[in-house]
Amino acid sequence: MFLTVMTVAEALACLAPARRSAAVAVAPTLGAVPARDVVCGERLPGWARATVDGYAVRAADTYAASETLPSLLEVTGAVAMGRVPEGVVGPGGAMAIPTGGLLPAGADAVVMVEYTTEPMPGHVELLRGVAPGDGVLQPGEEAAPGTLLAPAGRPLRAADLGLLAAAGVTEIEAHERPRVGIVSTGDEVVPPTATLAAGQVRDACAPALAGQVREAGGEPVLRGIVPDDAAQLERVLAEALAEDDVVVVSAGSSVGARDLTATVVGRLGEIVCHGLAVKPGKPTLLADCGGVPLIGLPGNPRSALVVFRLVGIPLVRAVAGITSPLPAASVRATLARDVPSAAGRLDIIQVTIRHGVATPRFGSSALLGPMVGADGWFRVPEAATGLGTGTMVDVELYG
Amino acid sequence: MFLTVMTVAEALACLAPARRSAAVAVAPTLGAVPARDVVCGERLPGWARATVDGYAVRAADTYAASETLPSLLEVTGAVAMGRVPEGVVGPGGAMAIPTGGLLPAGADAVVMVEYTTEPMPGHVELLRGVAPGDGVLQPGEEAAPGTLLAPAGRPLRAADLGLLAAAGVTEIEAHERPRVGIVSTGDEVVPPTATLAAGQVRDACAPALAGQVREAGGEPVLRGIVPDDAAQLERVLAEALAEDDVVVVSAGSSVGARDLTATVVGRLGEIVCHGLAVKPGKPTLLADCGGVPLIGLPGNPRSALVVFRLVGIPLVRAVAGITSPLPAASVRATLARDVPSAAGRLDIIQVTIRHGVATPRFGSSALLGPMVGADGWFRVPEAATGLGTGTMVDVELYG
Repeated sequence: MFLTVMTVAEALACLAPARRSAAVAVAPTLGAVPARDVVCGERLPGWARATVDGYAVRAADTYAASETLPSLLEVTGAVAMGRVPEGVVGPGGAMAIPTGGLLPAGADAVVMVEYTTEPMPGHVELLRGVAPGDGVLQPGEEAAPGTLLAPAGRPLRAADLGLLAAAGVTEIEAHERPRVGIVSTGDEVVPPTATLAAGQVRDACAPALAGQVREAGGEPVLRGIVPDDAAQLERVLAEALAEDDVVVVSAGSSVGARDLTATVVGRLGEIVCHGLAVKPGKPTLLADCGGVPLIGLPGNPRSALVVFRLVGIPLVRAVAGITSPLPAASVRATLARDVPSAAGRLDIIQVTIRHGVATPRFGSSALLGPMVGADGWFRVPEAATGLGTGTMVDVELYG
Repeated sequence: MFLTVMTVAEALACLAPARRSAAVAVAPTLGAVPARDVVCGERLPGWARATVDGYAVRAADTYAASETLPSLLEVTGAVAMGRVPEGVVGPGGAMAIPTGGLLPAGADAVVMVEYTTEPMPGHVELLRGVAPGDGVLQPGEEAAPGTLLAPAGRPLRAADLGLLAAAGVTEIEAHERPRVGIVSTGDEVVPPTATLAAGQVRDACAPALAGQVREAGGEPVLRGIVPDDAAQLERVLAEALAEDDVVVVSAGSSVGARDLTATVVGRLGEIVCHGLAVKPGKPTLLADCGGVPLIGLPGNPRSALVVFRLVGIPLVRAVAGITSPLPAASVRATLARDVPSAAGRLDIIQVTIRHGVATPRFGSSALLGPMVGADGWFRVPEAATGLGTGTMVDVELYG
């Protein structure tokens, strides 16, 4: 079979899905992805409110006020929270008002209580002047009709939920979580509940991929373990392609198993990439099956997780309608030893980090241990032929 | 009331909860927090396996092999995936073996198929020699009885799920997600579904805090909106303290509402902090109510979210049994303008980031907008009296 080896960037470009998950009306929840911009339908706040505890006044009455020559105003009432103030602030008058209280008619500013004294009941002395608008949140200052509350394509964050609630938005159009079918293959693979017979391994890929799918905002659909049999694999993959938005198959670790997968996938769609310029992760197969992207992952679990992080997660996010960049936690660290690499290939190096020093964890890509015990990874870019001890690297941290 | 103003570090130290969520037996899932170290009960792999496609051989038979003088071996069979090999590799013999195949008896290495030719049926020529163990994953190389698979206190990651599945661990002891009671207060506060009457605001705090609680690994328990009435507030708080692991109350924005909350909380427990040296977020109240931490948050939603991020999230994580550090996505950026600050106070500045430049977004702490529109925030530490234009700052990014 002709091997089309691609870089990660090339693979992402040629797999860019035209399809997006359907948009449905839902209550705003953390991580929901708005399918269109959510805009405000009203003014927030709807009425001028005090931003400090103090006295609602006419600013013009306070211009001359100072600590040495306070202005004396008559207190004609008090504003209660959540109520329309009874009465009006006239010239020379003032009303007590709490933070958040509705500004009474006639007043145009609030003097902080810290700058007042009460020389006698029913009166207040102001120790400094205020300008119109001081201590007041104006109507529409938070939002007005048409103000963008939450942009399309950015998963809702905690603060978004607050602003949407403030604006009375209790339903939005959001993308459904993409269904990601996960197919495990291999005559030697048995479920995690199994006691191992000689030569068998338990399915580590499917649970780990399910975790990555959830991290990416997708819904994993576990489609079980298929033996190395073309007819059975074709039936399971066809079912997954019909029902899911993205399909992932652990393509087996041997050449024979990979060839089998490639043959079956070739019948179901167009193979666009057969080999990724990544270590670990070269034996990766990417296909477009009638608009549904299919990722054939390497059989080694660690290689599979690396490739799914590089290719699968961006793909799932794209189908999920997410257009904002993935915020990756990272830290700069000093490389503890030389790391070899080949030009033209992206190398993913697992590391532990202590006191700003990144120590690579090597080992066969058949081992999950170097990844499980790592704090994160860094990339040796395609152009580099290795990095020397002491190089500063950007380590992407695991959760 | 005597105001005990604390720094965030002091507040976290004095609120450190002795309690942890109960440990229960659960299937391993993403984010579950092991209550104790999970160790392996068997050897992984259980049998020596090939890590490459090729031929299982006795290394001693290959030492002389080279491209100019290949070694000729007799192929006595083929290893099938997941099966015990039929036959033994004797001196001068070899068996074809796929990646992942069980190493047959007699063999101690695997020669990659790339370094072989098949001069005639039933025979293989080796173009290079191998040492014992080459191309082989040894029994126990991934893990052995007692090997740490997943440490206590670190939320399970995708790779952990893979390793646990590989080891046949389908149940672990994990901390229950802490219940975090969320109480909204204020005569002016109405539910997000309400049409606003003059002076009312919708409850923005509770949905936003619920999102933050989920981010921290907790389970939000929305306990509704309580008017500014001591008896009602005490009843709702007592119920929350009896049932939840952490209690959060939006303490109202006015001095009167805050005093009311403080009075009620003082009856239910010991107030350890009444004021946080943070802007925004000073009017924060922290109490220990018979072992249950209670956080009285400022009434302004943005201040409440900042304080909950600084104090509440670490607290919820601690109760959840999480001992690993919070991996925060951050980026270094250049400050676009001067930022004033007061010594002794931590300032939290919302920023947008474009091309490596962080532009502060100011505005009343009564507004959520500056936070919703921001890409992240940075901290002006307690010791600083402001930062100048061009300073490099570490911006913590929002999801």
